[in-house]
Amino acid sequence: MKLEPKNLENMIKASLNLIENDLVITNCKVINVFTGEILPADVYIYDGFISHVEYECVGDLTAVKEVYDGNGKFLSPGFIDAHVHIESSLLTPGNYAEAVVPLGTTTVITDPHEIANVFGKQGVKYMIEASAELPMRQLIDLPSCVPSVSELEHSGASFYYDDIEEMLQWDRVIGIAEVMDYEGVINSESRIHDILAVAKKHQVYMQGHAPQVSGRELSAYLCAGPSTCHESRSAGEALEKYRNGMKVDIRDSNSNANVMRIVPGMNKLKYRDNLCFCTDDRKCNVLLKDGHMNGVIRDAISAGMDPVDAIRCATYNIAKEIKLEKLGAIAPGYVADMVLIDDLINIKPLVVFFDGRLVSENGKLTEPICLKDFELEKVNSINIRKMSASDFQLKVDKHQFSDVSLNLIEYESYESSVTHCVSEAFKVKDGYVLLDTKKDTMYAAVINRYSLETKSIAVIRRFGISEGAIASSVSHDSHNVTVVYDNADNAVIAVNSLIEYGGGMVAVKDGAVICSLDLPVAGLMSTLKAKEVAPLVTKMAEANRLLGNHYLENPISRITILSLIVSPDIKLSDMGMVDIKTKKIIPVFS
Amino acid sequence: MKLEPKNLENMIKASLNLIENDLVITNCKVINVFTGEILPADVYIYDGFISHVEYECVGDLTAVKEVYDGNGKFLSPGFIDAHVHIESSLLTPGNYAEAVVPLGTTTVITDPHEIANVFGKQGVKYMIEASAELPMRQLIDLPSCVPSVSELEHSGASFYYDDIEEMLQWDRVIGIAEVMDYEGVINSESRIHDILAVAKKHQVYMQGHAPQVSGRELSAYLCAGPSTCHESRSAGEALEKYRNGMKVDIRDSNSNANVMRIVPGMNKLKYRDNLCFCTDDRKCNVLLKDGHMNGVIRDAISAGMDPVDAIRCATYNIAKEIKLEKLGAIAPGYVADMVLIDDLINIKPLVVFFDGRLVSENGKLTEPICLKDFELEKVNSINIRKMSASDFQLKVDKHQFSDVSLNLIEYESYESSVTHCVSEAFKVKDGYVLLDTKKDTMYAAVINRYSLETKSIAVIRRFGISEGAIASSVSHDSHNVTVVYDNADNAVIAVNSLIEYGGGMVAVKDGAVICSLDLPVAGLMSTLKAKEVAPLVTKMAEANRLLGNHYLENPISRITILSLIVSPDIKLSDMGMVDIKTKKIIPVFS
Repeated sequence: MKLEPKNLENMIKASLNLIENDLVITNCKVINVFTGEILPADVYIYDGFISHVEYECVGDLTAVKEVYDGNGKFLSPGFIDAHVHIESSLLTPGNYAEAVVPLGTTTVITDPHEIANVFGKQGVKYMIEASAELPMRQLIDLPSCVPSVSELEHSGASFYYDDIEEMLQWDRVIGIAEVMDYEGVINSESRIHDILAVAKKHQVYMQGHAPQVSGRELSAYLCAGPSTCHESRSAGEALEKYRNGMKVDIRDSNSNANVMRIVPGMNKLKYRDNLCFCTDDRKCNVLLKDGHMNGVIRDAISAGMDPVDAIRCATYNIAKEIKLEKLGAIAPGYVADMVLIDDLINIKPLVVFFDGRLVSENGKLTEPICLKDFELEKVNSINIRKMSASDFQLKVDKHQFSDVSLNLIEYESYESSVTHCVSEAFKVKDGYVLLDTKKDTMYAAVINRYSLETKSIAVIRRFGISEGAIASSVSHDSHNVTVVYDNADNAVIAVNSLIEYGGGMVAVKDGAVICSLDLPVAGLMSTLKAKEVAPLVTKMAEANRLLGNHYLENPISRITILSLIVSPDIKLSDMGMVDIKTKKIIPVFS
Repeated sequence: MKLEPKNLENMIKASLNLIENDLVITNCKVINVFTGEILPADVYIYDGFISHVEYECVGDLTAVKEVYDGNGKFLSPGFIDAHVHIESSLLTPGNYAEAVVPLGTTTVITDPHEIANVFGKQGVKYMIEASAELPMRQLIDLPSCVPSVSELEHSGASFYYDDIEEMLQWDRVIGIAEVMDYEGVINSESRIHDILAVAKKHQVYMQGHAPQVSGRELSAYLCAGPSTCHESRSAGEALEKYRNGMKVDIRDSNSNANVMRIVPGMNKLKYRDNLCFCTDDRKCNVLLKDGHMNGVIRDAISAGMDPVDAIRCATYNIAKEIKLEKLGAIAPGYVADMVLIDDLINIKPLVVFFDGRLVSENGKLTEPICLKDFELEKVNSINIRKMSASDFQLKVDKHQFSDVSLNLIEYESYESSVTHCVSEAFKVKDGYVLLDTKKDTMYAAVINRYSLETKSIAVIRRFGISEGAIASSVSHDSHNVTVVYDNADNAVIAVNSLIEYGGGMVAVKDGAVICSLDLPVAGLMSTLKAKEVAPLVTKMAEANRLLGNHYLENPISRITILSLIVSPDIKLSDMGMVDIKTKKIIPVFS
């Protein structure tokens, strides 16, 4: 991946003012990420690149096609998101662009990990094709762990050395994304080491993912190659990584507002050039409410970071992290991605330039995005036969008639996603395990949606809802269908509705669907625009609250990580209850 | 070029302390170039790489082969020179290593530009082979301009696209060196643009060279690709480049002590991560007297730079500039190049570790360097027929008998290398131009030493010496033989002696050789050690003074750049007097 002008000879001539430049932005204060200065300048643009920055402001403007008066505002490099899953916005790439470009985002490093687990390489290809010709740059980091952990779940695809090598040749692919199988990395397991090897062979960016990895394990992980991490949740964790040469991408996602936790600790350091920002997962309603990178920058500033430092963490530092030259700064030869802002505290983009073109003004795109038709958007990805009540009953062995001892999945709290395994006695009736409502338990099932007929049922505690059922085909990382329910009848309604809609989220109460959020694209994304999807998300959140989850600001995310088998300690896959540390299936009956 | 452990699985095990580490350096204060902190730590090493840095210092040392007690000293990453011509030390690569490793230098980015002009690709290959298995890392930046400016001089070789592409595959080659033909770059001349294109194709480091290039010309140069410059001579020049995204390599060479000029200006900036240090040209006597990168760091500190900042400019920043990961820092996965120092003001390396081995202690290598025999070291590179007096007489046209008007090369001062063209009348006798001693003039000739029989003679003023002759086969950049003389007889003795010695420098007074410095390897390098060559350099400097050059600390460098046809304004090649700006030959007779 290189960023180069189409015609270098003409570019040079434009620099020299020997041919007409396309645009000059005059009368602005350039945020210089090299020096940290803020300086009055005129910025000349040709063929999508900056041809010259006139700090003396004595330039002859006669040979310029268009003049844009910056009105004395600040001109920042366009904002970059160091790591995001666009699917998590619930929007397709085009609709995502419509949402984030007016917020000043001109580049994202997106990991199509979700759709890759559903549609494999075709899913990745779709994300590339659907992001061509947008008024922003969506760079692709290839999912390195599809499935997240092999042999403990079934997803729609598996990526190996050859797959990664093939995809590395595709448009806008810059590297491999979040190497989350850190156990595999430090235990030298072959699948993940093969994928590290192909990344090294092609000398591409190798993004890390090492939550709570520390001490000698962190050293081992770093020796293996991945050099970044967006998983730090405290200043202490971030500082250890930073000291050890890891690039720290501070994440402000839906539910992890790490900027406020980490920035104050990092502010004491002499150097912050290996510090970046990312959002990882931000639903469209959060984007509309809190912003995108502009929001992260704003948070960092309110956490005490110097504004130019914060802008650097969301621009130039990221470009260096991903090893992409000529991105993330306002200087000759750099791509002309820039944002005009009038306030260095509350970062509100007034005007956005992408590739040298004015693409957004006053919060709106200057031209609508032309959405193309893609066959894959119409493919039904929920390959599950119609369910019946017996599919959701937790059967005991035929010899057991009285109490039975169960391994149940217990959340640490209603807010935390950390779970533990607890063994407890449950009553049996007619050969089925009965829930005890006093124990704050619900059933949960994960159903393979890739025609495999695999399915697992478990009991969970402190999930949040206390009645009805919710089902989701957004179900990290394999995106099977997860359903949490009080009884089999509600589960049937929830899952069968979800099959009918072709994916999404469904909430059921008293035997009736009370809310649905259709996500027909891979069971992950809507085809609607952000402003249309956002109210549906809000409604689904309300439905969750109606069923008893009053604990979280974003309650709908809770079900989507019940099956995330890289998240401590016990989660549920279509193959059963998984102990994350031992990488073993735990029997439901203890 | 990648820096990777031979066996990653074992490396990981060493990190985890599951197998024995080779070495641990305990009880030292690590200079952390990521954070700017100085922290007590134990540093574990395996297979040449750092496997773990134990900041808590609670490590179990039992599984370590060797323990080195750092005695509470500072441990810095090994020093790196961002740009050097090893030939300019007058030493071969092995003897160079012997001189600089004890000074803390573990890596240099060397541009074998000089020998390439003499021996072409074979010269580059020699520098690579002669630097294998040394106790330091000599990384090769391929000379991009051989010859410096085509069609205005004859050197021993010419490099084109295919040559560069072939050499990019060779060991330890990291990019292309100082793109000095900036006029060619901004005028889109095909030879240099071809070479930029091959560097871009292979995505290698592209080192710039843009003395006094400013404004729109600087922008054009940056758009073309080169992203660094070591030619800034003032803080103002450096700052303009730095603001425009250029990486500034501050040079402290034999004669250009830019650190003191530039550092105070750069110290005011918020960010200095694009600032590096280099020496470019440092003769062995200067290395022994003033040090190498340790001396540059020391100068930067005395110019007001914070010591950790200064160390960063000579370590980590350079590794990033050349796009080489895992170099220039003390962290897991990084090569174990380190220097123990006990004082952060006067940087004197006590112990040097290279590739995880202790290679120098108290200013001496722990093991002598085993110098191999190379055929090329014995090849006579001075292909000039024996000269006679008539070769050095400046003949006039046969029709001219009285005064003649000459274009002469006049130095701005005795210290500056900048020259101008001045037209003046000279007397003619017997068909030859006579010097007028009152006018402080000398003859100068440049004789092709690659069997071409091309030769030019001119009159120069304010060169420095006022009698006798000095000749040199170190004669940038084509390294033809340059001789400056008062009369043809002295020139004959100087040049014929130099032919006899197979290259080097010769000083002649009153018809006799008063000093010679043999440089038999390509006419550029001695086969002796630094401590043997240094006194010879001192003697040659004294001989220059004896002939009248009292003006310069390093008078012997003066003759070596009289033929440098990228240095303003007028210089002399084997083809004639060259106007640097117009790239035209100027007639001697005006």
